[in-house]
Amino acid sequence: MSAPLISAADGMARLVTEIETPPFHATLKPFAKTYDAETGEVRIGLAYRPEFSFSRMGDFYHGGVLATLIDIAGHAAVAVQIGRTAPTIDLRIDYLRPAPGVELTACARVLRLGRAIARADISVYEADDKLVAVGRGTFSTM
Amino acid sequence: MSAPLISAADGMARLVTEIETPPFHATLKPFAKTYDAETGEVRIGLAYRPEFSFSRMGDFYHGGVLATLIDIAGHAAVAVQIGRTAPTIDLRIDYLRPAPGVELTACARVLRLGRAIARADISVYEADDKLVAVGRGTFSTM
Amino acid sequence: MSAPLISAADGMARLVTEIETPPFHATLKPFAKTYDAETGEVRIGLAYRPEFSFSRMGDFYHGGVLATLIDIAGHAAVAVQIGRTAPTIDLRIDYLRPAPGVELTACARVLRLGRAIARADISVYEADDKLVAVGRGTFSTM
Amino acid sequence: MSAPLISAADGMARLVTEIETPPFHATLKPFAKTYDAETGEVRIGLAYRPEFSFSRMGDFYHGGVLATLIDIAGHAAVAVQIGRTAPTIDLRIDYLRPAPGVELTACARVLRLGRAIARADISVYEADDKLVAVGRGTFSTM
Repeated sequence: MSAPLISAADGMARLVTEIETPPFHATLKPFAKTYDAETGEVRIGLAYRPEFSFSRMGDFYHGGVLATLIDIAGHAAVAVQIGRTAPTIDLRIDYLRPAPGVELTACARVLRLGRAIARADISVYEADDKLVAVGRGTFSTM
Repeated sequence: MSAPLISAADGMARLVTEIETPPFHATLKPFAKTYDAETGEVRIGLAYRPEFSFSRMGDFYHGGVLATLIDIAGHAAVAVQIGRTAPTIDLRIDYLRPAPGVELTACARVLRLGRAIARADISVYEADDKLVAVGRGTFSTM
Repeated sequence: MSAPLISAADGMARLVTEIETPPFHATLKPFAKTYDAETGEVRIGLAYRPEFSFSRMGDFYHGGVLATLIDIAGHAAVAVQIGRTAPTIDLRIDYLRPAPGVELTACARVLRLGRAIARADISVYEADDKLVAVGRGTFSTM
Repeated sequence: MSAPLISAADGMARLVTEIETPPFHATLKPFAKTYDAETGEVRIGLAYRPEFSFSRMGDFYHGGVLATLIDIAGHAAVAVQIGRTAPTIDLRIDYLRPAPGVELTACARVLRLGRAIARADISVYEADDKLVAVGRGTFSTM
């Protein structure tokens, strides 16, 4: 990051707005957990529902749900800092292990915030802090 | 590709199964369009619904829906060839322009099919064949 | 691509300049092969030298040489269109098979050219047109 | 990481071998700095030379040199743990700011080590610990 971070109160308010506004989020129901004004990190939760499953055999998240959660979290980390939406330009997602049907937490922070683009890193954990997937993306800040 | 491709009839049957089985697909409702036995390309459609939107202001797809469609299509291209699921290892998604609220078609083909991994390329078009996003991923074939 | 392409003569002249100017290119010695004014595709050659090898056991390219060739080719495809350098923002490289010690050809084209960023696709072939690696990147056009 | 890490002495010995063996490394001259047996992190240095430059106007690293350093470091982090080479499957590189002509340090660690593949994260710093580029890749462990 190259600029002062947004304050704790403003950051959390922006994060809540960011997570609650898009119509598609009403399908997944991600929720704002925390905003850390020291690091700029945002944390977003997602409760499991059986319709998120990849398989009829068991409760494991579909990769598309994880990809969406990673996109939402990376975007939120940038949007909170600039105070408006920051369209995703590109995104890489690495799946590390099957994600079981429990509440997930996505932690995202801005690696570098520029006038035209920002980069963010995202990590997705199971409820017990076990890493299940990571992402990295480029977002437009113009 | 390094092996003979699956036949047209088997490929289409596998593609339909692949698209209809995962519970999460019942939320998005992607549908199998075609399987090309010459190239191995699969084509998957997605009809727009307002709950897919990123914004309350207009009908544009949320990036997470596009990411999910790309994951589904790349996975399907590989799964059709090997006859079983091929978990996504990693994925890159490039958003090229805002995707308006119309039916999308994702075209995916295997770049290389190996014993441990496969790579697939995915292109997502608007109804009028305008490219809106592309993806590339690595999938497990073990 | 969203704008008229640069003409054949201008494109080839720019490509040659682009490939010959950077000091690091004097180490690898990539060379401009063709510029296609219909598609905007640039083709860049690279002759094998034993110091490009990954292993003392045989003549296979080091992955870093392929990554550099992919970066050079993607960058060149964009730079030719805008008439100036277009710094690489991010890049994904997929290695498809070991690249033997023969002349390689990297083909690159712009997927989408915008005012702030461009995306390019790059394919690297052995002398006999066998694909050995592919790349996709985002480049700054500001 | 899912297995006990290699000891400090073995790790450092393997890292030196890994960095010194490939013929292409004699061109760039990366050097092993440290191996941390607590985290598995490897650190690799690269001294600047004018032939690494992108421009005749000033001393900034060519993106291909950074991509190569990232490939080398990510590969080394995995190879040290498994005791043999781990061919790069795919790699994403994010350039964060122009990298000036000073000594660079690449820090790499394994995110997850599996029987078929491993993922590694790589960060490249200027001499004063300023981040200039990051990478993430998938490597074969078979």
